[in-house]
Amino acid sequence: MTSTTVRFEPWGTVVASAAGQTLLDVARLADIPVGAVCGGAGTCGKCQVRILAGPLAAPSPVERDVLGAEALAQGYRLACRYPVNGDLEVEILPVVSHGKGALPPMERAVAFDPATRRRAVTLEPPDLARPVDDGGNLLAATGAKVLDYRVAQLAPEVLRAAKWQVTASLHGDEIIAVQPSTGAPPPLGLAIDLGTTNIAAYLYNLEDGAPLGVFAAANPLASYGADILTRLVYAQQNRENGERLQRVLVRALNLLIEHATATLGYAPDAVEDAVIVGNTGMHHLLLALPARYLVVSPYVAATRAAMEIKAREIGLTFAPGAYLHLPPLVGGFVGSDLLAVALATRLDRKPGVRLVIDIGTNTELLLSVDGKLVSCSTASGPALEGAALRYGMLAGAGAVDRVWLEDHGSFHHMTIRGKPAIGICGSGIISALACMAQAGVINRGGRIQAGQPGVVKLEDGDRGFVLVPEAATALGSDLTISQHDVRAIQLAKGAIRGGIATLLAENGLTVDDLDEFLVAGAFGNHLEVESSIAIGLYPDIPRDRIRLIGNAAGAGAAMALLSLEERQAASELSARIAYLELARIKRFARQFAEAQRFPGANGRP
Amino acid sequence: MTSTTVRFEPWGTVVASAAGQTLLDVARLADIPVGAVCGGAGTCGKCQVRILAGPLAAPSPVERDVLGAEALAQGYRLACRYPVNGDLEVEILPVVSHGKGALPPMERAVAFDPATRRRAVTLEPPDLARPVDDGGNLLAATGAKVLDYRVAQLAPEVLRAAKWQVTASLHGDEIIAVQPSTGAPPPLGLAIDLGTTNIAAYLYNLEDGAPLGVFAAANPLASYGADILTRLVYAQQNRENGERLQRVLVRALNLLIEHATATLGYAPDAVEDAVIVGNTGMHHLLLALPARYLVVSPYVAATRAAMEIKAREIGLTFAPGAYLHLPPLVGGFVGSDLLAVALATRLDRKPGVRLVIDIGTNTELLLSVDGKLVSCSTASGPALEGAALRYGMLAGAGAVDRVWLEDHGSFHHMTIRGKPAIGICGSGIISALACMAQAGVINRGGRIQAGQPGVVKLEDGDRGFVLVPEAATALGSDLTISQHDVRAIQLAKGAIRGGIATLLAENGLTVDDLDEFLVAGAFGNHLEVESSIAIGLYPDIPRDRIRLIGNAAGAGAAMALLSLEERQAASELSARIAYLELARIKRFARQFAEAQRFPGANGRP
Repeated sequence: MTSTTVRFEPWGTVVASAAGQTLLDVARLADIPVGAVCGGAGTCGKCQVRILAGPLAAPSPVERDVLGAEALAQGYRLACRYPVNGDLEVEILPVVSHGKGALPPMERAVAFDPATRRRAVTLEPPDLARPVDDGGNLLAATGAKVLDYRVAQLAPEVLRAAKWQVTASLHGDEIIAVQPSTGAPPPLGLAIDLGTTNIAAYLYNLEDGAPLGVFAAANPLASYGADILTRLVYAQQNRENGERLQRVLVRALNLLIEHATATLGYAPDAVEDAVIVGNTGMHHLLLALPARYLVVSPYVAATRAAMEIKAREIGLTFAPGAYLHLPPLVGGFVGSDLLAVALATRLDRKPGVRLVIDIGTNTELLLSVDGKLVSCSTASGPALEGAALRYGMLAGAGAVDRVWLEDHGSFHHMTIRGKPAIGICGSGIISALACMAQAGVINRGGRIQAGQPGVVKLEDGDRGFVLVPEAATALGSDLTISQHDVRAIQLAKGAIRGGIATLLAENGLTVDDLDEFLVAGAFGNHLEVESSIAIGLYPDIPRDRIRLIGNAAGAGAAMALLSLEERQAASELSARIAYLELARIKRFARQFAEAQRFPGANGRP
Repeated sequence: MTSTTVRFEPWGTVVASAAGQTLLDVARLADIPVGAVCGGAGTCGKCQVRILAGPLAAPSPVERDVLGAEALAQGYRLACRYPVNGDLEVEILPVVSHGKGALPPMERAVAFDPATRRRAVTLEPPDLARPVDDGGNLLAATGAKVLDYRVAQLAPEVLRAAKWQVTASLHGDEIIAVQPSTGAPPPLGLAIDLGTTNIAAYLYNLEDGAPLGVFAAANPLASYGADILTRLVYAQQNRENGERLQRVLVRALNLLIEHATATLGYAPDAVEDAVIVGNTGMHHLLLALPARYLVVSPYVAATRAAMEIKAREIGLTFAPGAYLHLPPLVGGFVGSDLLAVALATRLDRKPGVRLVIDIGTNTELLLSVDGKLVSCSTASGPALEGAALRYGMLAGAGAVDRVWLEDHGSFHHMTIRGKPAIGICGSGIISALACMAQAGVINRGGRIQAGQPGVVKLEDGDRGFVLVPEAATALGSDLTISQHDVRAIQLAKGAIRGGIATLLAENGLTVDDLDEFLVAGAFGNHLEVESSIAIGLYPDIPRDRIRLIGNAAGAGAAMALLSLEERQAASELSARIAYLELARIKRFARQFAEAQRFPGANGRP
């Protein structure tokens, strides 16, 4: 039996494969979700993967049909059709959530008033006595003034197929879509939080504002660098690079949206409006805006202004004339994601000292002192999200997501879906480190203590701690946490906690002045508060002042999607959020260093 | 010595070539204008031709550099580099005029108020204390509200190259271009009359409204059918066909505009606004609007509404964010070209009975009865423009353009630039037919009379008349006018004159009621009035009632380019022009037949 391995990117998971297996078989064995709504029949095209390295097999006739020449040339294949023919490195768009996740809780109610609305009309068919043009017919009946160019191209067939009973979708006074009234899907709206590592998409019915589902995927640009700076440096080397990253990202978004809409029984062209928020880096990469002056002092964005462009202009396949709204950016790397957090929470309207942190590969902070807003961002890296660690993985099946100590200091763990452990996700590593500190496996400086139970020397010479012994894993080896992993988490939490301290200090405050400490972001909301305090990521303040508010950036994006009033408010708010460049603050370096310590460590100092 | 021939499309000219000649050599010998501003050095790329049939040579390194892979794959080569390597069929974009033609005379003055305006600003460079984004910097300094997406992509480099002294171009409150203030070309505006057979482009300086030049080219879609209906039928067969015609047309427009701007020392991206008028068919082909319902009863346009789209949306290479304005269509095949004529003449504001005819492959008629406007169109075919005739050609060097009789009935002729005759253009054939009728070579029914001097039997059995004997031609044969040619002209003039009669009759009028008979169109203005009356194309009315007004469609397009007030007026006017479908009028068939006769023929009836 031949033994070959497949490495799945951006997951970093390596799986052994047997002869005769397809990539879909292998991915399923490893519990890596691959879209395959046809059950592997080769018809749905949802299981596309890209062969990054290894022998590229000639496409099958089915792949030719489904993928087309361009995608084939780029190395795309169907996982369900692709025989594992050697050691492979494969990129898939890991849809980590399929419509079952939690919608971002709205901190407050908004007036429902979306940018698009529909008009169902019955047109009088043209005849020789009144040979009215289709566009004019439609404009007159709907009261619109402008017909989108692509809609003008499509309308004649639609009108006749619909026997002149059509529903037009209007954005302002422009018709952006037209379809038969019978069987028309609801108008869909998309709010997307475009994170450095993860993408969250929230789908709404724009007829009544009802939430329809949440879908998440890994950001495919991770293969161009885990941190945003690496990607920006790559993108600004030449125009082709920038355009390539845009293409990769848009393709992933299209796949995600196709998957999301299909799950609900619709097609992507039912999407009639979208709001995308993200940090300055992801915003620039999505729009292929030049990043050259963003990565060198004085760190200037190509533009921070709100943009409203036709979605098709960047290749997104929504309704033919649909717009994409990009709220303004705040400053530096603080983008429209933090603006969305500010919109969702409206801290500017509340008294007291309040701080929101939105944890991600870039972590953004927003401080409100009696309604005066200041923001900053800090490069916390992807380690907290489980990436860039020895056994790090996204929060999928088999990931260790919780660790605890029992009476005599023995380590216990849980995995997602109870599968044998194959890795550790962000909440798992925080939980593990809190236990390791408490058990004296690491000291206050984060050093793994030789001689402690479970501490071993790893094959690369690094010191490590056996969290899960081989027998309880599906790895064929122990699941260990290395000294390098601990350092990565220290840097991450140091950046965040150092940022918190600096932001407060610049306003003459300390963590004890906080009336409220709000944790935003899908990731932050999965962390155990006590573990996070134990490792020094969160401040040790009265627990009733700490509040988890879910993905507030997603909630803010949804508010801007559902309400033009909120969209307008966001633009006004953006002008009122001051931006603090941490790199310019002398005390930050010291506070960053201090914040790397483990306050709860029980070992030697 | 090998003897090969090259056929140049859409000219239809066949030229013998000797070994060692390039396509540019051959084209020059035949006086076919090929753009070659570098003098054949292979550097300017202006002499591109497309090899339609015959051996396709591998591209030279120069051609690879200048044309790129896509154009090469489509058969494009540089005429100056291409050795004639066998019998060839070659398509060139025949720029028949290079900036020296007459600008369309304006019938009236317009208020200069173009859709775009410029703002020269000096920006404050960003620094760490004020790391303002480039887009925000530009918007604040110019007072604009929206930054075009492509401009946002380009601005960072431009701002720095210009040392922050830049000139922004605004369309409303949107920045559509930005460039260094030093050395900035003037903002150019384009008014294009997109005819079925010919394209006329008028270039203006949008800073002061000064006319800069007129450029004309043959419509490349002629190779997909001389008449508009054939092209529309082809375009509607499937989506690819429609997109192909759009691509061919846009490519030709880009070449023409590149040529026009280069002639004046500028680049195409200096074009900041454009207005294109054309008949309904050309309008639909340019926008790739579905033609399916335009070619069957009740002849419904996809849309007749005015459109304003980004020029880049259809691939036109203007300034990055420039718009293209397409005025509304009138009805049936009467398009924005006739609307432009109505705008140029404002017959609706004048008393009396006035008729404008705009002669082309489609001829449009506009009747004003005390300001009440009615229009119709009639498919006159390309024969009047010299196409589709045995020796027909465009009005280039060597074309017979005037014929006259001397004392004893002997035929004399003149050619353009005095070259030996190689064909006959539209004004030449009208002039020739008038003489043939007067000399009794044809009778009232248009039949060539056997036995008359010069009447011969042609090799295909058709009867013909030797207009220029072989010795005075560069053809190697007599230049003859066949019975088939005469019929083609009869159909053309019958369609026009029949249309005139029907339009008048439907309003209870005859040609004798005309206070003014206006001839519009570059072509009509080259015809001799007396010849045109002699063959029955124009009505025989007092000569002081006949007025040649030049390319009024071009003039109207220019007015809409130079003045937003006029652009608005055009939209209002479009709603007030009634449209008469000649096919629905019973008397038209009879009047079409009657109008085919030659009133001035002196032969037997």
